[in-house]
Order: sequence, then structure tokens, then C-alpha cells
Amino acid sequence: MIDLSIGTVSLTFPVYSLSKISLLATAAAATDAPLVLAGVLLSLVVIYLSAKLVGELFLRINLPPVLGELVAGVIVGISALNLLVFPNGEAGFHSLILDFLQFTAGLEPEAVQGVASSISEVISVLSEIGVIILLFEIGLESDLKELLRVGPQAAVVAIVGVAVPFILGTFGLSFLFSVPVVPAIFAGAALTATSIGITAKVLAEIGRLSSREGQIIIGAAVLDDVLGIIVLAVVASLAKTGEVRIGNIVYLMVSATVFLIGAILLGRLLSPYFVALIENMQTRGHLLLSSLIFAFVLSYIGAAIQLEAILGAFAAGLVLAETEKRTELEKQVVSIADMFVPIFFVVVGAKTDVSVLNPIDPANREGLIIAVFLVAVAILGKLVTGVAVFGQDGINRLAIGIGMIPRGEVGLVFAGVGAATGVLSDSLDAAIIVMVILTTFLAPPLLRLAFQKEITSENLESLPQKSE
Amino acid sequence: MIDLSIGTVSLTFPVYSLSKISLLATAAAATDAPLVLAGVLLSLVVIYLSAKLVGELFLRINLPPVLGELVAGVIVGISALNLLVFPNGEAGFHSLILDFLQFTAGLEPEAVQGVASSISEVISVLSEIGVIILLFEIGLESDLKELLRVGPQAAVVAIVGVAVPFILGTFGLSFLFSVPVVPAIFAGAALTATSIGITAKVLAEIGRLSSREGQIIIGAAVLDDVLGIIVLAVVASLAKTGEVRIGNIVYLMVSATVFLIGAILLGRLLSPYFVALIENMQTRGHLLLSSLIFAFVLSYIGAAIQLEAILGAFAAGLVLAETEKRTELEKQVVSIADMFVPIFFVVVGAKTDVSVLNPIDPANREGLIIAVFLVAVAILGKLVTGVAVFGQDGINRLAIGIGMIPRGEVGLVFAGVGAATGVLSDSLDAAIIVMVILTTFLAPPLLRLAFQKEITSENLESLPQKSE
Repeated sequence: MIDLSIGTVSLTFPVYSLSKISLLATAAAATDAPLVLAGVLLSLVVIYLSAKLVGELFLRINLPPVLGELVAGVIVGISALNLLVFPNGEAGFHSLILDFLQFTAGLEPEAVQGVASSISEVISVLSEIGVIILLFEIGLESDLKELLRVGPQAAVVAIVGVAVPFILGTFGLSFLFSVPVVPAIFAGAALTATSIGITAKVLAEIGRLSSREGQIIIGAAVLDDVLGIIVLAVVASLAKTGEVRIGNIVYLMVSATVFLIGAILLGRLLSPYFVALIENMQTRGHLLLSSLIFAFVLSYIGAAIQLEAILGAFAAGLVLAETEKRTELEKQVVSIADMFVPIFFVVVGAKTDVSVLNPIDPANREGLIIAVFLVAVAILGKLVTGVAVFGQDGINRLAIGIGMIPRGEVGLVFAGVGAATGVLSDSLDAAIIVMVILTTFLAPPLLRLAFQKEITSENLESLPQKSE
Repeated sequence: MIDLSIGTVSLTFPVYSLSKISLLATAAAATDAPLVLAGVLLSLVVIYLSAKLVGELFLRINLPPVLGELVAGVIVGISALNLLVFPNGEAGFHSLILDFLQFTAGLEPEAVQGVASSISEVISVLSEIGVIILLFEIGLESDLKELLRVGPQAAVVAIVGVAVPFILGTFGLSFLFSVPVVPAIFAGAALTATSIGITAKVLAEIGRLSSREGQIIIGAAVLDDVLGIIVLAVVASLAKTGEVRIGNIVYLMVSATVFLIGAILLGRLLSPYFVALIENMQTRGHLLLSSLIFAFVLSYIGAAIQLEAILGAFAAGLVLAETEKRTELEKQVVSIADMFVPIFFVVVGAKTDVSVLNPIDPANREGLIIAVFLVAVAILGKLVTGVAVFGQDGINRLAIGIGMIPRGEVGLVFAGVGAATGVLSDSLDAAIIVMVILTTFLAPPLLRLAFQKEITSENLESLPQKSE
């Protein structure tokens, strides 16, 4: 088109941005943005591919697909293949994806740590959005009236399920293993909070979310989550100062109560106006985006008042489930959930270091012995919650107890905080991680069995095996 | 439950993680992860709220909603309210969201820059995923056969639309404004590449994506994008060494051709197996996730071989549109697109500094005068492409020309690279930004008018105003 052989140009450019220009034509100057995007895309491919492969396999051997996603995460995560990018202590970041980016996309060695940190950050946030969307969907599929009706039972299940493991765990560690009192309380507290995400997903997969048992479990798990946060605050302040800051506990209890009840009451009050507003909107995706705005605002408030974002998302789903838009919205949220939720479960698995389970390593043995005790307490302490349910004839008490077993993320937060503050010994820390892994991985197949047994023995009704 | 008043505890903890524990019960030790999540949630609320408000308003005054989303971005972005978090040169990050996080969620002043950088990174990647999903959806709604049928016309439109603005721009700047030759070539090159995202979105909004004009525009815009990348590589290497690296150009041309044709041929060859595989899958979201894996893999390859991720996503959509799963997949992608695409348009608007348009500031005047020239060349240079279409009786040549006008992101990359390398003077750099802003904001309403006029004058068929 034009003679380009101009020999007289003499301009000075910073070298770093020019190598970018020729290597990556789309790079805005001096940033590694395209490499971060490329790394995130690769990570998502790894997450989706492993989630589907192992999930499909697990469905065929009659195990819950969500357990398959957790196992997929373990396989691609820090314990085995190391395909995803997560911070690995002082060694910085290491992952096959980073090597692949260096090899295929011209990622330069000196830029690796910066790009890796960004990829890790983005995937972590996507996974957090995943559990927010999951709890929003669970709220949308829950029935507020049914939840309120089983409220007293759920409260009993939650309180028993927090108190029994905490007391058994703390005293057991003190007396059987001679653990000092503060670490014993800390580990006992780590036994309290049920992971609502895993149980809810399994219930949804076997079509039991809206059953009486399902709603008691969900209600109890939500209360449990609130109680777990309060316990964490108590234990952390105890570990810090040797005494308990009553003001903080009262604040958390009041704010949790006000938030959950307030969000639902206010939401119900405002929902007719919300529906009327949506009816008047005409642009694409108005229902979905308006609902996401609502869910994200409540999630933000939940996070900001030191509770959890997922509680806000759950409350938003509950409120919107009461409106006439429920069915339409549920349909639209399905694809969003399909895209985001697997990221959460694979990332949970990927961040879990299962090498503490290896009995051949002598360093693990003390932890494993304590872990056997913690797992027993963790399972028994939640199984008794089923017995505590009152006034519900013919209810599947076993299923309720099992549904409360998985500990998941809150337990890992305890282990992480314990390790960072030095309050937990290495073996106790490892034992908590083992407890979280085993309860998380055992509960889904057991929950399925508990419901299947009931069906086979009681009414031979066919159980939905295929969730679509 | 247990006596907590233990006064004998004496442990030493690092202070930083303890303040986190009490402030943010869910925080894994010593990270600001919950604050990053909170910031991302707030950013998404701002994006969705502004996109819907201004989008709905624009629809009511008969302007395209996507233009509303761009304007919404300008309003909440760096030019006006500064609600979103983006790097702001040497001053670091500043945003009302950060102030809000400090006020409501206990973000500490010393942690602001780190959290801000993470939020900015996450939102940028979400916006990039947004344009990938958009191009995937556009590919899915396109008709490969029709696209191949109009291929020759699209090629002519693309080549004319790159050559004319480049030549007019470069020579005009040289002779009319006495701009030195390298900056003139650089600015001329910035006039070449059409922004496919904006045009495709407007075409979809007015239901004209699958029309003959629509398919010519899409085909030409895709080729244009490839040509634009090649031009950028040429110009960048010219600016760097004063000469053109022929090898690099040949590489880009060959790789682009091989990639686009190869992806489509291979995809068509493999798609029966893909469909058979999906038919055998049973877990939730198997069709959507399998398709996303395909789209993300091609996007990654597109990015890795120095083309663009969006070209891969478009090719993936085209291939999947040929399978029997098209209708089902289209339905599932709608919600994903509704969630992600507005992030892209709002972020494009938010990152654009419209203060260079202010004629009261004397520093802007030289740039504005050059900008008037560049805008004229940008519009005329693309309008003539409609005239170049051959062998298509009764085709809306005006609509094709207008459809090619918006420059968008590639133009901004030129401005960014130009500013970073010092090859462009401040006024020329500002003029390019003004050209991008005006072509981007003018084209959507003009495109709508061009199609509406045709309808009114030719067949009085009612135009779909509401896109749902």
C-alpha cells in the first residue's frame, strides 16, 4: 500500500513495551493483561474438563457428581497435577499452566509471578461468585414458608450440631490427647460449622432439596454458618487476648439476626415494586440482571457486616422465590449456575492438600491419630442432631444427621487461621484438614444412601438419578 | 457452653493476621480476599445498575441499548463519577468504591492499593470474558454457509475499509497538518480496524444479524480485525526499528488464515463426535460446559498465536451453529451473555477518558482540530466500502458502510501503544481517542436509522424494537 522502508527514524522506546508490541499485538502497552486472560481461559478449560470427566464417571458409579468435582479439583490441584495456579507458600507460584503460557504464549520468566498472582486472584473470585450463585439458586429453589415451618426443628438441629461436636472435641482433645486448653477449644470450634454448599448441591442432585428433610438441613446449615462465624470470632478473640470480647459476640449475633430477618422482611415488602419495575423494562436480560443486582447487594452487605456473602445471596434467592417471576428466573439462573458452580467445587478440591493423609510419611502419623478422633466426633456430633428433631413423625433422622456432616470451607478457614497464628500445632492443624477432607468426601455418598434406603424400604418410588 | 475466662494464655501472634481475624471472620489468614470479593460485587452492582438504567432510557428515546451501556460506562468511569476501580497512572488507584470499602467493610488504608489492583484485574478479565462470550454468541447466531456465500463481498469491504482510511489518514496528516511520517502512519493505522463487538450487538438488537447486510458486515469486521492486527504489527515494528520485519507479517497472515480456516474445517470434521459425546453425558450443564471448553480452547489458541481471543470464540460459535445442538445451546448461552456482555461495554466506556473532548481546555484544541479530520476520514473511509460491494442487487450499501464505522478497542490499543512508546504527540494521541469515541458513539444510532429508512421506504415491515 505504501512504501514502508524508511531508514531515517530514530526514536527511543522503553524496551519492555516494545517486546510486548511485537509479541502480543493486542497488548495495551506495558501490561500483561492478555497473558492473564489467556491463563484464566486455560484454568477454566482445566476446571470444566476435569469437572465433567470425573463428574460423569462418578455418576456412572452411583456417586454424587459434586463429589466428582471435588475429586477433580484434588487431581488438578496442589496435591497432584498442579495444573491450576495458586500461591504455594514462600516458593511463590508454580503451575503447569504457567509453564505452558511461557512455552506457547510468550510469557517472560520475569513476569511469571505477577501474571500468576493475577490469575490466582481472578480464579479465586470466580469461585467465590460460584458459591454465591449456588446459594442464590438454592434460595430460589427453597420455600420460605416451609423453611419457617421447620424453623424450630432447624434451630434445634443447628444448636445441637454446634454444641455437641464443640464440647466432645474440646474435652476429648484435652483429656485423651493432653492438648492445651486454647488449641483444644480452637480445634473443637473447627468441628462446628456445616458446609452448606456441598450438602445443598447433593440434595439438589437427588431431587430432595424441597423435601421436609432437605429444608430442615438447609435451614440448620444456614443457622450453623452464622453460629460458626460467631464461634470463630469468640475463639479468635480468646486466642488473641486470653479473654472473650462480649461486645463483638453480641454485635455478630444481633447483626446476623437483623440481617437475615431484615433482608427477608424488607425484601417481601419491596418485591411487588421490584416485579412492577421489571415488567416495565424492555432491554435484554432485565430480569436476570435486576435479580443479580439484588443478590449481589445483599451479598455485599453480608460480607461487609462481617457475616458471609453467601448468606446474603441465599436471602436474596428466598425473597425472589416468593415472587411471580420465580419460574422464569430459575430457568435463567440455571445456565449461570452451570458455568460458575463447578469453579467453586473444583477450586475447593484444588486448594486442599491431601498429602497430610499419607500414612507412610512419619510426620503425618500423630496428626492422623488425632484426625481419627476428630472425624469420629465430627460424624457422631452431627448424627445426633437427627435424633434431636422433634414433632416430625416419620422423618428421615439419619438423612438429616448425615446432611449436616460435611465441614468444608469454614473448617479450612479455622485450619488456615490456626496455622497462621501459631495457636495450632502442626499435627493438630493437619488433623483438622483431614477431618474436613473426610467429612466433605464421605457425606455426599452417605446422604445419597440414606435417602435411597428410605425409598427402597418404604415406597419403592424411583429416585431421580439423572439431574438435568 | 464452657468457661471461657482463661487468664493464663500467653501466645505470640503476628499482629496483621489477628486484626484480620476479628475484623473479617471469613478471611483466610493474612489475605484480603474477602475485600477483593466485596469490591468486585460492588463493581458488578454499579455496572449492572448503570447499564440497565441508561440502557432502558436509550431504548425509550429510540437509541440502541448498547450505546446506553457505553454511556453508562462513561458516567460511572474515569471521566465522571469514578465509581469503578481502574489504574489511574502514577496516582495509583482511586475510586469511590474503595472509599466505600474503607468506610463499610474495614478496608485498611495501607491495603487499599493491593485490593484495588486485584479488583481492577478481576473486572478487566470479566469484561474480556464478556466480549469472548459476545463473539461466541454472534458466531452461534451466524450462518457459516451465508457467511461463505458473502465471503468475497466481505473481503472487498474489509480491504477497502482498511486501505482507504489508512491512505487518506496518513497522507492527510502529512500534507495538511505536517505530521512527521512515522506518527502519521501510526495514526493512519489506528483508523483501520472496525470494532466488531459494537456493530454486532446493534445488529442483534435490531434483529438484522442474519440479514445479507448483517453477514457481510460481520464477515468484513472479522477480516478487518485480522488486518488490523497485522497493520499494528507492521506499524509497531516500523516504529521500533525504522524498517518492517517481513517475517513477522508473513507469520501473522499465515497464522490468521490457517487458524480461522483450520478451526472451522477441523471443527466441522469433529462436531459429529462432539455431539455424540454430549448425548452420552448426563450431569448438569454438560452441553454448555462442553461448548465453553471448545470456545475457550479456541480463544486461548487465538490469543497465543498473537491474534485475538475473540476470533477463536467467534470460530467456535460458527462451528457449533452447524450442529443439531444449536437451538438448545443458544438458549443456554443467552443468560451467560446477559450477565457478561454488559460488563464489557460498561468497562469500555468507563476506561475512556472523554475529557479530551472538552473544547474549553486550550490543551485540547490542537487535538480536536486534528480529531475533526480523523473522524471525517474514519467515517468516509468506511462509507465507501458499501459502494465497493459488487453483485448484490438491492443491498443496503449505506447500512454496510455505517456498520463498519465504529473503531472501539483496537483504536484504543493504538492510542495506548502510541502514548507508551512516545511515537504519538499528545495532541495526535488525544485526536485518536476522540476519533474512537465519536465513531463508536455515532455508529449505533446511524446504523439503526439506515435500516429503519430502508424498512419505511421499501416494505413498511415492522422493525423489532424489543429484543428479548
